[in-house]
Amino acid sequence: MQSSKPIESHGQPIAGGKLPLICVPLVGHTLDEVMAELAIVLPKKPDVLEWRVDFFESIGDVAAVIAAAKAIKSKAGDIPLLFTRRSVMEGGEKIALNEDQVIALYGAVCESKAIDLIDYEMANETANIAQVRAAAKSNDIKLVLSFHNFSSTPGLEALASKFLMADQLGADIAKVAVMPRDPNDVLILLAATQQASQKLRIPLISMSMGPYGSLTRLFGWAFGSALTFAVGARSSAPGQVPIEDLNTVLGILRKAMGDGQTTP
Amino acid sequence: MQSSKPIESHGQPIAGGKLPLICVPLVGHTLDEVMAELAIVLPKKPDVLEWRVDFFESIGDVAAVIAAAKAIKSKAGDIPLLFTRRSVMEGGEKIALNEDQVIALYGAVCESKAIDLIDYEMANETANIAQVRAAAKSNDIKLVLSFHNFSSTPGLEALASKFLMADQLGADIAKVAVMPRDPNDVLILLAATQQASQKLRIPLISMSMGPYGSLTRLFGWAFGSALTFAVGARSSAPGQVPIEDLNTVLGILRKAMGDGQTTP
Repeated sequence: MQSSKPIESHGQPIAGGKLPLICVPLVGHTLDEVMAELAIVLPKKPDVLEWRVDFFESIGDVAAVIAAAKAIKSKAGDIPLLFTRRSVMEGGEKIALNEDQVIALYGAVCESKAIDLIDYEMANETANIAQVRAAAKSNDIKLVLSFHNFSSTPGLEALASKFLMADQLGADIAKVAVMPRDPNDVLILLAATQQASQKLRIPLISMSMGPYGSLTRLFGWAFGSALTFAVGARSSAPGQVPIEDLNTVLGILRKAMGDGQTTP
Repeated sequence: MQSSKPIESHGQPIAGGKLPLICVPLVGHTLDEVMAELAIVLPKKPDVLEWRVDFFESIGDVAAVIAAAKAIKSKAGDIPLLFTRRSVMEGGEKIALNEDQVIALYGAVCESKAIDLIDYEMANETANIAQVRAAAKSNDIKLVLSFHNFSSTPGLEALASKFLMADQLGADIAKVAVMPRDPNDVLILLAATQQASQKLRIPLISMSMGPYGSLTRLFGWAFGSALTFAVGARSSAPGQVPIEDLNTVLGILRKAMGDGQTTP
């Protein structure tokens, strides 16, 4: 009954195809802060690290960003690094760069090969998405096309169209994160994920945010989400649970579900 | 966003209205076996005990059943006792009694006041249900009307009609337990529970069974199920998790969800 598809990097499923992958965000404002987070996070053995570069105060200095990415990568060893500028519109920090400068930064970071995956929002202009996709593809970097709604949960069909749009725009991975207003919204996100996982060839990442949505961070993988974000040092979005708690729940679920391989 | 209604007994919400209540089944064949189970189970502090009398080899001896119920009750102290004959049709053990004898047993056990709640299947004849309801009501015992399907999950509307039927037949609590064939069936059970919890005045108990369904035993309370069954000594249905694991997950969920009282 397992419907999640594993996420690959450099031709191999990350962490041997483990489901779900656990991704921990890095949200330091300076390289020192990011390194301090890494020192806390790495002993907790995340499967993926997401560097939220919109928190980084030197985001306007391409060389500093690349140097920081290389420093993270060198500490992180084999753990794949996801590079993300989250826009203010979709819950990120305010930055001084315009979109052309962001595209240039993304291109330079891809060329540096200091990262393994890159996140770009599917709400951006198609031409920009094409540029990011080309930069990622030519450097063997996987492209996450993402959609976030921090105020509500679109209906089932609207959510389905977001997953489909990511696929049609050439994403390697589709990510959808939305806010529930009631428990039924949590079920809508899970149903959309489950249906998309049956239809699309690419792996999916989905979550419902906030306190109620935290349920989906724990068991959304059973409905097709291949990766879940957890708190290593500091949270980057509402509803993330500590990586230790996530591992505890996943251990219990795997035991109860027989690794999800058994039919009931 | 909390949609579960607490289950009451003798005019008070059980365990102070805690959600979900944790119910542990007793499935011994003899009084000695049941007492041995109790000795294992009681230190684990369940909120409710269910005595599955269809496992009890002396089920044909009304006096022996009442004596056993009193013995359980005297060990269990304040923990409410749910008395259940599960039929073979709905996953129970084969017994030598016909339905008239079961009704007579139910009446005698209610009159003994050795129990606090009683489970009867809503698939039974309406006249029989009315008799059980009258015996329960006149002895201040809460009536659970239940529906089980061990092979599949009916559609959303069929599930809705089961919850509604329990209410219309005069249940104090409606219980629906079904088997998923794919992850979407788990979502259908949760959606039906969530919708029924908005519509009906009575508390609900629901679960999806088997490995995948075990998810609902852990977090179905967030979608309106007031009680979940866990393994204290021995399991009574597929997908039940050990009470220790259930408590661990509930502790993490309550922390993540802020006791479910906060909106996201």
